[in-house]
Amino acid sequence: MTFVIIGGDAAGMSAASRARRNSPDLEIIVLEKTEDVSYSACGMPYNLADPDRDINELVVRQASVFRQKQNIDLRLGHCAEAVDPAKKTVSGRKAGGEAFEIPYDQLLIATGAAPVIPPISGADLPGVVGLKTLDDGRRIKGILARGDIRSAVIVGMGYIGLEMAEAFSERGVRVHLVKPRPELLPWMHEKLSAVVLEELQRNQAGVHAGQEVREIRQTPDGLKVVCSDMELDPQIVLFAVGVRANSEIARDAGLNLGPHGEIAVDRSLRTSDPDIFAAGDCADAYHVVSGQKVWVPLALRANRAGRAVGDVVTGKPVELQGVAGTAVFKVFDLEIARTGLSVKEAASAGFDPVDQVIFASNRAHSHPGASRVGVHIVGDRASGRLLGMQMVGKDGVAHRIDAPAVALHAGMSVADFLECDLAYAPPFGPTWDPMLVAAEQLIKKLK
Amino acid sequence: MTFVIIGGDAAGMSAASRARRNSPDLEIIVLEKTEDVSYSACGMPYNLADPDRDINELVVRQASVFRQKQNIDLRLGHCAEAVDPAKKTVSGRKAGGEAFEIPYDQLLIATGAAPVIPPISGADLPGVVGLKTLDDGRRIKGILARGDIRSAVIVGMGYIGLEMAEAFSERGVRVHLVKPRPELLPWMHEKLSAVVLEELQRNQAGVHAGQEVREIRQTPDGLKVVCSDMELDPQIVLFAVGVRANSEIARDAGLNLGPHGEIAVDRSLRTSDPDIFAAGDCADAYHVVSGQKVWVPLALRANRAGRAVGDVVTGKPVELQGVAGTAVFKVFDLEIARTGLSVKEAASAGFDPVDQVIFASNRAHSHPGASRVGVHIVGDRASGRLLGMQMVGKDGVAHRIDAPAVALHAGMSVADFLECDLAYAPPFGPTWDPMLVAAEQLIKKLK
Repeated sequence: MTFVIIGGDAAGMSAASRARRNSPDLEIIVLEKTEDVSYSACGMPYNLADPDRDINELVVRQASVFRQKQNIDLRLGHCAEAVDPAKKTVSGRKAGGEAFEIPYDQLLIATGAAPVIPPISGADLPGVVGLKTLDDGRRIKGILARGDIRSAVIVGMGYIGLEMAEAFSERGVRVHLVKPRPELLPWMHEKLSAVVLEELQRNQAGVHAGQEVREIRQTPDGLKVVCSDMELDPQIVLFAVGVRANSEIARDAGLNLGPHGEIAVDRSLRTSDPDIFAAGDCADAYHVVSGQKVWVPLALRANRAGRAVGDVVTGKPVELQGVAGTAVFKVFDLEIARTGLSVKEAASAGFDPVDQVIFASNRAHSHPGASRVGVHIVGDRASGRLLGMQMVGKDGVAHRIDAPAVALHAGMSVADFLECDLAYAPPFGPTWDPMLVAAEQLIKKLK
Repeated sequence: MTFVIIGGDAAGMSAASRARRNSPDLEIIVLEKTEDVSYSACGMPYNLADPDRDINELVVRQASVFRQKQNIDLRLGHCAEAVDPAKKTVSGRKAGGEAFEIPYDQLLIATGAAPVIPPISGADLPGVVGLKTLDDGRRIKGILARGDIRSAVIVGMGYIGLEMAEAFSERGVRVHLVKPRPELLPWMHEKLSAVVLEELQRNQAGVHAGQEVREIRQTPDGLKVVCSDMELDPQIVLFAVGVRANSEIARDAGLNLGPHGEIAVDRSLRTSDPDIFAAGDCADAYHVVSGQKVWVPLALRANRAGRAVGDVVTGKPVELQGVAGTAVFKVFDLEIARTGLSVKEAASAGFDPVDQVIFASNRAHSHPGASRVGVHIVGDRASGRLLGMQMVGKDGVAHRIDAPAVALHAGMSVADFLECDLAYAPPFGPTWDPMLVAAEQLIKKLK
């Protein structure tokens, strides 16, 4: 039995390791087009913030460990180009140009996602970058090391854009955030995103929403970014407007794709071909609240889906529940977290969403060091079910969000969530946690 | 209709406020034996740590606000001494000695709990204190203000003892913790309590487990605490060996009590007399995991139970789910949290507990500032159900515990908890949160 994996990052290597643990004799071949496997992509903004940290610190496990300790046939510099589901082969080219063709019994496509770089003039200039692979990180680190980077334009205000705003600022680089849509974080309630805007401005980041990038030009002093009605003159431009699934190989093999080009999989990570699996940022998932397909390319899901494939191919059936859309990130001193559905997502999933925003202290009455936590909660009018929660605050937000995430997996009502015996001590919050305050106020609207 | 409440702290004033909100015309009389209502008892150790903070900052709402804005007949200095369920009256004495007798239609006993001071010689000396009421806090603050307190003996190592160890240390007072039992925190797994011990010792606190206090004597220089086989010479002794329910008035009225003297109530907070309710630290609760009665005198439950009584007496039926036993506290730089059942509690509740301890990083791979989080997880062999979790760590523990608390309310299995889409970003934890790592390792043992 030969298990072939295309892609040696989170999902691919998780699948390989799990399959090996379950089956000492299985032949496991991993085809990775770069020279890097198993690195912490999410750690890149934090590494880039510190000139003294080597980017290779982000490598979690060396290729040699997979090869020698786990007997995984890890082939670096192997770019898979085509899958033939009838012949059950993967073909492609090695870094040197030499062609290869490998037969598989079971195949995992774990090709990840790539940053979207819009097709504008100048998008291919040196100094215009995306951030997804370790090589992207190396490129940015190299540019920053030149010492002449005074200002950066970040296109997009998702979590990569905001994390990189902090990273550039820590390197002494003035940051301008630019995005075409007028809303700062469109999925976030405006009262919470106003807090994020305040934090960005407090840290001297320029925030230019409603500005489309039309063109980038090389100048003697760096780059000129021409937007809808302004121009900026940075030395580096980072595109962080989102990612798209690397699913060409799946599409060309005739596998079903979702609406954004992500590979469609069932709860056991099987594609429309029963011998081909997909996992990680290239594949979709079920949402535990809506039951519908979603595409949420995040690290925990990639790891979990990879492990599940490792189990399934070695004869241990697994059906994953899916994702709650939980995400958290930090921007300067602010923690930003979400789980479940926003009002808009809930409405389009067929719910009748009712929502509430509250601001409360993150400390008990009179405890020093208090600051405000903003909570946005969404429930369903018809069933009373909890549908989602979003939070911003200076501390305690990142881990608080796990509580409603668990509640969403359990299908809890807002009323049941309000009954939960959450932790209380004065340094960590008021007696009624802000999440409970939000739930109580929402219930009044649901009735 | 007259609603009489004995006790003007968390449960009593929550009930009064909620009842008023529901019913503008109800006569609401609160009998409080002290001159204080509605203060943050849990905030006292933190207030005592800071000589510049007035202890009255802990008062959340002044008596005048309850009287004028909420039309609550709040009678301070009224000590209730007896309830006559047949006549439906409460009788007692005012601070000046004058007797009173008040008829009720519905009665709430919210008399709280008091620190246990063992009947040893010298327990009544000045300088020997407990910490429960605001007056206790004033007494300790006054003693500390004398400026001659060089060392303190704290008897007991529950959360009050440990929080006060930190508070005394911050005031420059050398701390000795003394307790009769050999275990530091008997409910905690020994690998986790070893971390707590290390933190206490790192902060120069003397930890003397297995030492019973035999006698306390006045000396020219302060106090002499005679233990099983050592003597200590502090200027202040704090008894923090636990509390007992202030339930004499309920017992004398013939109401049913639980095994520790706490007042037995149903899910609507009714005692064995249908017109008498009990809530707060004097009353028991159902445990959401075992379904059995437990006595967990903590602030959130007191507030929640008080509100529920306010609803029930005004014609809004409420049945509370109960408590998960969630608790959190801070000692120096360490956060300590628990929810659900320990192995011992699970076994005595009829489960077949299986447990696992893990230590993991509280940051992603290579992220700076990492420290260890210890997680102890308990599951039931027969059903696979999650029964409890305990954690220690330098940050992120206090809020993490809410996730398993919600899971316990939902009756989740360990396997379902492992599927939860928890938050991940490098500053806040590894991709697989330590709680998920613990769940995964426990599942191997459960199978």
